[in-house]
Amino acid sequence: MNADARFMALALTLGRRSEGRCWPNPAVGCVIVREGRIVGRGWTQPGGRPHAEVVALAEAGAAARGATAYVTLEPCAHHGKTPPCCDALIAAGLARVVAATGDSDPRVAGQGFARLEAAGIAVERAAAPEAGAEAHRGFFRRNAAGRPWLTLKLATSLDGRIATASGHSQWITGPEARRAVHGLRARHDAIMVGAGTARLDDPSLTVRGLGIAHDPVRIVVSRRADIPPQGQLGQTARAVPVWICHGPEAGAAQRSAWEEAGARLVPVPVTQGRVDPAALLRALGQAGLTSIFCEGGGTLAASLLQARVVDEFIGFTGGLAIGAEGRPAIGALGLADLTEATRFRLMESRALGGDVMHRWRAEDG
Amino acid sequence: MNADARFMALALTLGRRSEGRCWPNPAVGCVIVREGRIVGRGWTQPGGRPHAEVVALAEAGAAARGATAYVTLEPCAHHGKTPPCCDALIAAGLARVVAATGDSDPRVAGQGFARLEAAGIAVERAAAPEAGAEAHRGFFRRNAAGRPWLTLKLATSLDGRIATASGHSQWITGPEARRAVHGLRARHDAIMVGAGTARLDDPSLTVRGLGIAHDPVRIVVSRRADIPPQGQLGQTARAVPVWICHGPEAGAAQRSAWEEAGARLVPVPVTQGRVDPAALLRALGQAGLTSIFCEGGGTLAASLLQARVVDEFIGFTGGLAIGAEGRPAIGALGLADLTEATRFRLMESRALGGDVMHRWRAEDG
Repeated sequence: MNADARFMALALTLGRRSEGRCWPNPAVGCVIVREGRIVGRGWTQPGGRPHAEVVALAEAGAAARGATAYVTLEPCAHHGKTPPCCDALIAAGLARVVAATGDSDPRVAGQGFARLEAAGIAVERAAAPEAGAEAHRGFFRRNAAGRPWLTLKLATSLDGRIATASGHSQWITGPEARRAVHGLRARHDAIMVGAGTARLDDPSLTVRGLGIAHDPVRIVVSRRADIPPQGQLGQTARAVPVWICHGPEAGAAQRSAWEEAGARLVPVPVTQGRVDPAALLRALGQAGLTSIFCEGGGTLAASLLQARVVDEFIGFTGGLAIGAEGRPAIGALGLADLTEATRFRLMESRALGGDVMHRWRAEDG
Repeated sequence: MNADARFMALALTLGRRSEGRCWPNPAVGCVIVREGRIVGRGWTQPGGRPHAEVVALAEAGAAARGATAYVTLEPCAHHGKTPPCCDALIAAGLARVVAATGDSDPRVAGQGFARLEAAGIAVERAAAPEAGAEAHRGFFRRNAAGRPWLTLKLATSLDGRIATASGHSQWITGPEARRAVHGLRARHDAIMVGAGTARLDDPSLTVRGLGIAHDPVRIVVSRRADIPPQGQLGQTARAVPVWICHGPEAGAAQRSAWEEAGARLVPVPVTQGRVDPAALLRALGQAGLTSIFCEGGGTLAASLLQARVVDEFIGFTGGLAIGAEGRPAIGALGLADLTEATRFRLMESRALGGDVMHRWRAEDG
C-alpha cells in the first residue's frame, strides 16, 4: 500500500467513529499530512458539526500550510450551518487535497473540487471510490432516493423462527451475537421495530455492554400508535429519542400520551391496511436519518421486503429448531414463485460464538 | 507431524474412500510401512469385503514381514464372512500395529488387540482416538444404539422456508450448494425423504455430476406406502435400491406395486399417527445401515428432531426470503419454551457459491 492509500485508510477509519452520530451529515474522516508526518486528524463531530476538515485543520494549525489533506468525501462548498470546508482548506494554505469520492449531494457535487482547484490546490477526486461509496452509503442513499439505508437484522433458529408460539425468544442466539447486535445498533442513526415486537418484547433498544455512550433514535412503527407508553421506550423517551411512526387513524389519546412521554410523532400514510413502507422511509429520510437498523418483527420485515427497500440483511442463526408453530422471521410476502423474490448477495459469513452471522446486500442495491 | 501421525492420516484418508459403500462394515483404511516406506495400502472394499488390512497385506506381500500396519480401527478378531484380520496380520509377520481407536463392536472390543499382543506384535491401541471416533461415527452409533448416524440436511431461504406455498423450490440455493449435497449423499449409506417430498418433488435421489458411480440406498418414509410407483424412484428401483418404510396400515395393493417395481418394504410401527421415528431408525440399523442423509421434508424432519435422533444438521441458506406462506423447513415441534429445544453445536460455517453452508452436531450427540 502506498502512502496515499495508507493515509486514506486512516481517514476512512476516523470517519467510522461518527457513524450513527452525525446525521443528517455524512460521517467524514480527514487526515492532514505534511512531509510524510500526520499533523492533523479529524472526523465529523456528534450532531454533524464541526466537519472533519475543520477539526483536522484546528489540530494542524500553521503546519497545514503546504500540506496534503486526505478526506473521505468531497469537501463542502455551500454555506450550511457552517461556512464551507473548501474555504477553510484554502485559507489554511493546503497544497493538495485527496478525496476518496465526490459528493452526490447536489449542493456540492463537483463544486467543492472546482473551488479548491480554482484556488490553485491540486485535487485528486476519486482516490478510493468504492471505499468512499461504502463509507457514505447511507448519506448517498438519502441524497439519491430520499430515504435512509435500511439494514434488516433477524436472529433466528435453524428453521427461521424468532420466537416460540407463546413469544419465548430468550435466547435463540448467544452472548457474542447479542453483543454484535449492540455494535450494529451503535453504527446506525436509528433502530426500528414494529408494533408487535414493541408490545410483546417491551425492548429498550439501547446500546449496552460496549462502553458506548451513544444511543441511536428508537423508532416504533405502529399504525394506531397504540403501544403502551408505560413500557421501556416510553419511560426513557426523554433520555433517548423515541419516534412513533403512525397512520392517520392513530387516536388523539394515544398520540398525546406519547407526546407527553417525550416521543416525536411521525405521521405516515397507510396503504393496504399497513403503514406504507416507502412513505415511511421517505418520512424518515426527510427527518434527516441516513441509516436505519430494523430488528423486525416478521410483519414489518415482510412489509419492507415487499416494498424492496431493504438494502442489507444481517442474519444470526442459532443452533436450535423451534418448529412450524414458532413466530416466523418474515411474514407473508405473497410470492407466486421464486423468480419474484428479491435476491441478496452474500457479503460475509462467519461463526460468532456458537452462532452463524451472515450478511447480505440486495442484488439491486 | 511425526511419521506415525502422517501414516495414520493417510490411513484415515484411504478409509474415507469407502464411506457409504461398505455397510454394515466400517469404512477402514490401512497403510503398511517398512523402514519408512509405504509397502501396502488398503481400504474396505465395496459391500464391506475384503477388509482394509487384507487388501493392504496383499499389496505388501513379503514386505509386510517386520513392518508396521497403521489401521483406523482395531482389527477384527472374529470369524464373520471372512477370517479375522488379526490372523492375517499375525501370519504376515507384522512387527507392530498402530490403531486409531479400538472397536466398539462387542465381538471385537479389545479382543483384536489382545490377540495381536499374544502373538508378540507391538500394539498401539489409541493413536488417534478422536479422528477414529469421527471416521467410524456411524458404525459406532449403530453398535452403541442399534441405529445409524443421522444427518439432517435442509436447504432454506433466509427465513427458513424450503419452497413457496405452491411447492416451488427451484432454486433456493445455487449450483455449488447443490453439488455439495450430491457429495454428501455419496458419503452416506442411504438418502431418506418423507412421503410429502417424494410426492411433490418426485426426486431421483441419486448422486449426479461428480463422476461417482455409486448410489446410496434411497429411502421413503410413507405411512401408507401410497406414493405412486410410476415416479422417478419406482422407475429406477431395480438399478438403485429403494426402500419404502411404511406403517401397518399400508394397503396390500400399494405394497405389492412397490415390490413389483423392485423396492424393499420395511414395516415400522406407527405412533401418534406417524411412522415411529425411533423404531424407524432401529429397523434401518437392523437392516445394516450405519449412516443416513435425510433431506426432509418438514414433517419428517420435525418427527426426527422430536425423537432426538438427529446427530448432525447441515443447512444451506440461500439469499432470498420466501415469506410466511412458504413451506416450513421443520414442521410443528410442540415446544413450550426454548429450554426444551435440542441444541446443536456449530462445527463449521462458510460461504459456498452465493450461499452459506453451516454444519452442526447435536449437543448430546
